[in-house]
Amino acid sequence: MSLFIVSDFKDIIILEGEESRHCYKVLRKKNGDLIQLTDGAGTYGIGRISNIDKHRCQLEIIERKFVEQDSFHIHIAMVPVKNHDRMEWFVEKATEIGIHEISFVSSEYSERKTLNTQRLIKKARSALKQSGRFYLPTIHELDTLNHWIEKNQADEMFVAHPDKQNNSLLNRAAIPGNHYLLLIGPEGGFSDKEIHAMKQRGYRSVSLGKNILRAETAGIVGCQMFCEINFDTGK
Amino acid sequence: MSLFIVSDFKDIIILEGEESRHCYKVLRKKNGDLIQLTDGAGTYGIGRISNIDKHRCQLEIIERKFVEQDSFHIHIAMVPVKNHDRMEWFVEKATEIGIHEISFVSSEYSERKTLNTQRLIKKARSALKQSGRFYLPTIHELDTLNHWIEKNQADEMFVAHPDKQNNSLLNRAAIPGNHYLLLIGPEGGFSDKEIHAMKQRGYRSVSLGKNILRAETAGIVGCQMFCEINFDTGK
Repeated sequence: MSLFIVSDFKDIIILEGEESRHCYKVLRKKNGDLIQLTDGAGTYGIGRISNIDKHRCQLEIIERKFVEQDSFHIHIAMVPVKNHDRMEWFVEKATEIGIHEISFVSSEYSERKTLNTQRLIKKARSALKQSGRFYLPTIHELDTLNHWIEKNQADEMFVAHPDKQNNSLLNRAAIPGNHYLLLIGPEGGFSDKEIHAMKQRGYRSVSLGKNILRAETAGIVGCQMFCEINFDTGK
Repeated sequence: MSLFIVSDFKDIIILEGEESRHCYKVLRKKNGDLIQLTDGAGTYGIGRISNIDKHRCQLEIIERKFVEQDSFHIHIAMVPVKNHDRMEWFVEKATEIGIHEISFVSSEYSERKTLNTQRLIKKARSALKQSGRFYLPTIHELDTLNHWIEKNQADEMFVAHPDKQNNSLLNRAAIPGNHYLLLIGPEGGFSDKEIHAMKQRGYRSVSLGKNILRAETAGIVGCQMFCEINFDTGK
């Protein structure tokens, strides 16, 4: 059954614009058909179509439930790469796999100073709809690395930095059920000063495997490792 | 140091066309500079530039070694999806992470009947160059599922199929050091007949996590899981 994201869970819900068109034209839904709904914040429901045309689709909610958020929390911050598509891919794939929060931070070796956050949110919404999850990840506006480090705190804080030491694999270093932060560096890595600031805040260097990964791949691999160690963690 | 792929490891090597242009224009290499080379089949070397212009770059090999292939082998087969970009992305990311062999198979619920294999190989070559690996994965031409199943055999054979049973996670089911096959189904899954044929050949159903993943994401997650369990496996 198709999943739609709605902003508010009233008894009668109206889908408009692109969503209504998708429902009517692409999925060819008719009056009486059922569709799944979520508000992207844990509420899930089933709506019965009571009135549909290409501009507008009216639904009556016939079932509603609340799904608890995961007891662990994955927050990944990435230094934005030159190619915007690669960040969109990261957001899409991490949403499918199970990320909770995404940040972008500008560092000394940043390749990009602006970010289309609205486009990233759109990617996350579309990934959520087909992944069967009911929580939309939070996507923050671009911040500076220093400010971001000051502001964010978690049970376990990691940095994926190729510092040539024998770092532990992330999935062996992290403990299930925690709130995690993972910082992914730019192509040239973080500067020594930046790494020093992270170490002082309690960040640990970790490895994401044997090969050199592009930033967006590192983000996806990190997210996957956190999800794997929490596979048996209760809601 | 930049890595280039060469077809043959002679004492004197000539880079031409796009490779030479990249070396001269983008990396601004000069006579005497060193670059890394691989043949994508385990040979790795360092070349010193002896003559460079935008059309042609001549190198003398000053170091050469052979790196053993991994003792495990990851072969993933995917039913091609409608959007070619998504398959290119899978090839790129799986190459970075550590795949050895990639197949595409047409099944009953295929959305696409043709494939631009040359474009996929190009993506793999470019991913290899920045990942620090010295083995280019083999990418096969599109085959039919039935023929492919008949032809391919491995120590452990898995299918990622949402059959609503409580399947084991792939990284718990697979044993390190083996030769693996993993089949990733299309959006509608494989048909009952196809699943029956796989089961008869010894395929086991596995899960790739809690969420519903797009085909290309499933491919990446599967590849990552195989690499993780083989992190300590010797060459």
